[in-house]
Amino acid sequence: MVRRIEHIAIAVKDVETSVRLFETLLGKSCGSIETLPDERVKVAFFELDGGRIELVEGIGSDNPTSKFIERRGEGLHHICLEVEDLPETLRLLHAAGFPLIDTAPKPGSSGTRVAFLHPKGCNGVLIELVEQPSEA
Amino acid sequence: MVRRIEHIAIAVKDVETSVRLFETLLGKSCGSIETLPDERVKVAFFELDGGRIELVEGIGSDNPTSKFIERRGEGLHHICLEVEDLPETLRLLHAAGFPLIDTAPKPGSSGTRVAFLHPKGCNGVLIELVEQPSEA
Repeated sequence: MVRRIEHIAIAVKDVETSVRLFETLLGKSCGSIETLPDERVKVAFFELDGGRIELVEGIGSDNPTSKFIERRGEGLHHICLEVEDLPETLRLLHAAGFPLIDTAPKPGSSGTRVAFLHPKGCNGVLIELVEQPSEA
Repeated sequence: MVRRIEHIAIAVKDVETSVRLFETLLGKSCGSIETLPDERVKVAFFELDGGRIELVEGIGSDNPTSKFIERRGEGLHHICLEVEDLPETLRLLHAAGFPLIDTAPKPGSSGTRVAFLHPKGCNGVLIELVEQPSEA
């Protein structure tokens, strides 16, 4: 079962410029801008009560974020929903006919596990599912 | 200052069909489907911890939601952020150069006041701001 909206991600052309824009808009500062070379993106997060806003810029042209912007312009890119048990959720959604981009959990940041559902099964919305690390 | 993501809205062609889809996806049922004749939309909300997911279908072709779908297909439509003092937030954002769709708060559902910012000032994201009714 989905607990909450963990974050929403916005694809932007220049994350430094957009961080300044969203600092004004949200009335708060973001922690830092991180570069993730393996995923060829730069990301910044704004912490809000209950969930976060992620700004994401593709590095170079050959990555999904840059291609998204080329095709659709800057804007809302995906939402990330927190679930309790990711493998079981994927099993249930697969059985229910949802097309999965990731058929098994993969490592996310800070010890999380994540998987993406295909937007064609979710009314055009790219959905990431995240499971927090167990506290044990 | 923005407190939290109050909801994210997804534009869909048929809200009844999408409610069934999201009930499976989210593992929970939505309350009910509401028709808002003045705004020419049908909406359904799913309550999650900290925020909600709204599904919105335009009634007929001459409304912003139907036009959005015609132009871009189904998908993420806008995000709604909760603020403490909406008139003051609008004043500050206007002074900072953000283009506003609504220059003053307008009545939202359940006693709230809302206003939309223009996506051209927010990296292509349509942003609704909401202020909850005062408890006094």
